[in-house]
Amino acid sequence: MIKNVAIQGILGSFHHIVSEQYYGKHINVQEFLSFDAAVDSLVTGKSDAVVMALENSIAGSILPNYALIDNNNLQITGEHYLDIQHHLMALPNQTINDIEEVYSHPMALLQCKKFFKAYPHIKLIEDKDTAEVAQRINNQQLKKVAAIASDLAAKLFNLEILARSIQTISHNETRFVIVKLNKKNIEDREITKASLKFELDHKRGSLATVLNVMSDCKLNLTKIQSLPKIETPWKYAFFVDVTFADVTHFNKAAALLDIMAENFKILGTYKNARVFKTETHDWES
Amino acid sequence: MIKNVAIQGILGSFHHIVSEQYYGKHINVQEFLSFDAAVDSLVTGKSDAVVMALENSIAGSILPNYALIDNNNLQITGEHYLDIQHHLMALPNQTINDIEEVYSHPMALLQCKKFFKAYPHIKLIEDKDTAEVAQRINNQQLKKVAAIASDLAAKLFNLEILARSIQTISHNETRFVIVKLNKKNIEDREITKASLKFELDHKRGSLATVLNVMSDCKLNLTKIQSLPKIETPWKYAFFVDVTFADVTHFNKAAALLDIMAENFKILGTYKNARVFKTETHDWES
Repeated sequence: MIKNVAIQGILGSFHHIVSEQYYGKHINVQEFLSFDAAVDSLVTGKSDAVVMALENSIAGSILPNYALIDNNNLQITGEHYLDIQHHLMALPNQTINDIEEVYSHPMALLQCKKFFKAYPHIKLIEDKDTAEVAQRINNQQLKKVAAIASDLAAKLFNLEILARSIQTISHNETRFVIVKLNKKNIEDREITKASLKFELDHKRGSLATVLNVMSDCKLNLTKIQSLPKIETPWKYAFFVDVTFADVTHFNKAAALLDIMAENFKILGTYKNARVFKTETHDWES
Repeated sequence: MIKNVAIQGILGSFHHIVSEQYYGKHINVQEFLSFDAAVDSLVTGKSDAVVMALENSIAGSILPNYALIDNNNLQITGEHYLDIQHHLMALPNQTINDIEEVYSHPMALLQCKKFFKAYPHIKLIEDKDTAEVAQRINNQQLKKVAAIASDLAAKLFNLEILARSIQTISHNETRFVIVKLNKKNIEDREITKASLKFELDHKRGSLATVLNVMSDCKLNLTKIQSLPKIETPWKYAFFVDVTFADVTHFNKAAALLDIMAENFKILGTYKNARVFKTETHDWES
C-alpha cells in the first residue's frame, strides 16, 4: 500500500499534480527541494515511492535522474505523461512591465526562454522549484517579482496570472516515472513496457545485433539514447525503452540481452501509459 | 578563408578557447550573448563560422543547438573536444564564505551543483555566459559575488580563483562543432565522420534495418538519440553520428538511407577529431 510519495518541489508543483493524477488524493505527498533528497528518503525507508520527471520535449532526457535511478539500483514501476503549461504569475495589480525578476526551476526557465526575449529588463534567476517561488511571493508579499508555475500554484498562493502558457512549445509534454526500491508485484498481463540499460563491446554491428534480437522478440523501441561512459573514454552505455504486447516476449529478449550485452540491467517493468491505436502505431526496433 | 568566427559568450569563454584551438589566433572572434544570435550572424553573412557546444558528459546532447542547425539547414564542418574545468573566482582577498551570489551559465551551474551543496548560503543565478560574469565582477568591482569560469577568464579579468575544478566530474569533456552555411570543400580522404538526422516509418524493425545497413557499409556509430517529434505525437526523429575509414562507404550508406528513411538529412561530413587506436576500438553499428 502506497502512503508516502516523495516529490521534488512543494504542493502546487507539477510533481504534485502528477502524484495526484497517478495515485489519487489519498496519499501523503512529501516535499523535497531536490531529486537527490527525494531519493534519499526512498532509500532510507521514509518514502514508499518517488515521482520523478524523466524526459521532456525541449531538453530531452533528464540524464541526472537516470543516474539517480541507476546508481541507487531503484526500480521504475510506472509512468505518467503531463502536458505542462507554464504561467507567469505575481501578486495582484501589477503588469509585466512592473516585474524585475523571475525566479523558477532551470527547466521552466529554459522552456520559456523565448517569451522573455521581448522583456530584456527582466532578470531570470534559477530556483529550486516552480511552486515554491509562488509560495514565497505570497508569504513575503514580494512585489516586482514573478514566478513561472502551474495553475494550481496560482490558485494555492493567491497570485494573478500575467501571461498564460508562456513556454515555447504549445504542447509541452513531460514524461514522469514512479520509482521504488523494489519491483512492484503486478500481474504479467499488466506489464507492457520496460526500461533497460546496457553496454556493448567494441565490435561493429553490436548495436544492430541487439536491436535485431529485440525486433525478433516483437519488442517496440520507444526511446534510445547512447551516452559515453564518463570515466571510461570510448565506452558507451545505452538507455532504451521498449513496449510489448506479451511479457513472455520481453522475458525472452531479456534473457538473450543479458548474454549479449555487458552490464545489462532492467531499470523497471511497468504498464505503458500510452494507448496505441494499432499495434504498429509506433516506430519499432 | 575563415576570418569571422561567431561564438556564444565573450573573450575568455570556453567557446573562445575552442575557437583558438581549432583555428589558431589569427581569426576575428565575434562575441554573441546567445547561440541564436551567433547563428543569425552566420545566416546574414556577417560571420563565416559558428563554434557551438553540442554534447557534454552530464546533460548529454544540447538539443536546442541541434534544432538551430537543423532548422537553419546549416552544415557541421568540424568538431573539437575540450576538457572543461570550472573554477570559482572572485575579486581578490575574499574567501568562499564571503560569497553570497554566484552567477554563471546554466550548464556550468548544473555541472557544479554538487560543490555548492556544502555552501547553502550561496545563491546560484543563471547568466548568459561564464566569462561575461567574470568581466562584470572586474568592471564593477563587485564584492561578495563570484563567477564560475575558465582559467583564461580569471587571467583576463584579474580575478582570484577560490576553488579549482569544482565541476562534479573530473574529466568533463564537451564536444563542440564548427557550423557553416555550406559544406566545406575538403578532400574525400579527410572526411571520416558524419552527423545524420532521419525519421522512420512505423514498422517494427525499421531502426534495426537502418543500423544493419550502416553496419554492412562499415560505418561505426558513435552516437544515437531518438527524439519525439514535438508537433507529431508518436513520430520520432533520430540523431546519429557515424565514423568511417572510407567516404565511399558512407556515400553508399547515405544513398540507401535516403531511400529507406523519411526526411533523411546529412547535417555535415567532416574530419573525426578522435584518434582511434584500432579500427574496432569503439562500439559500432
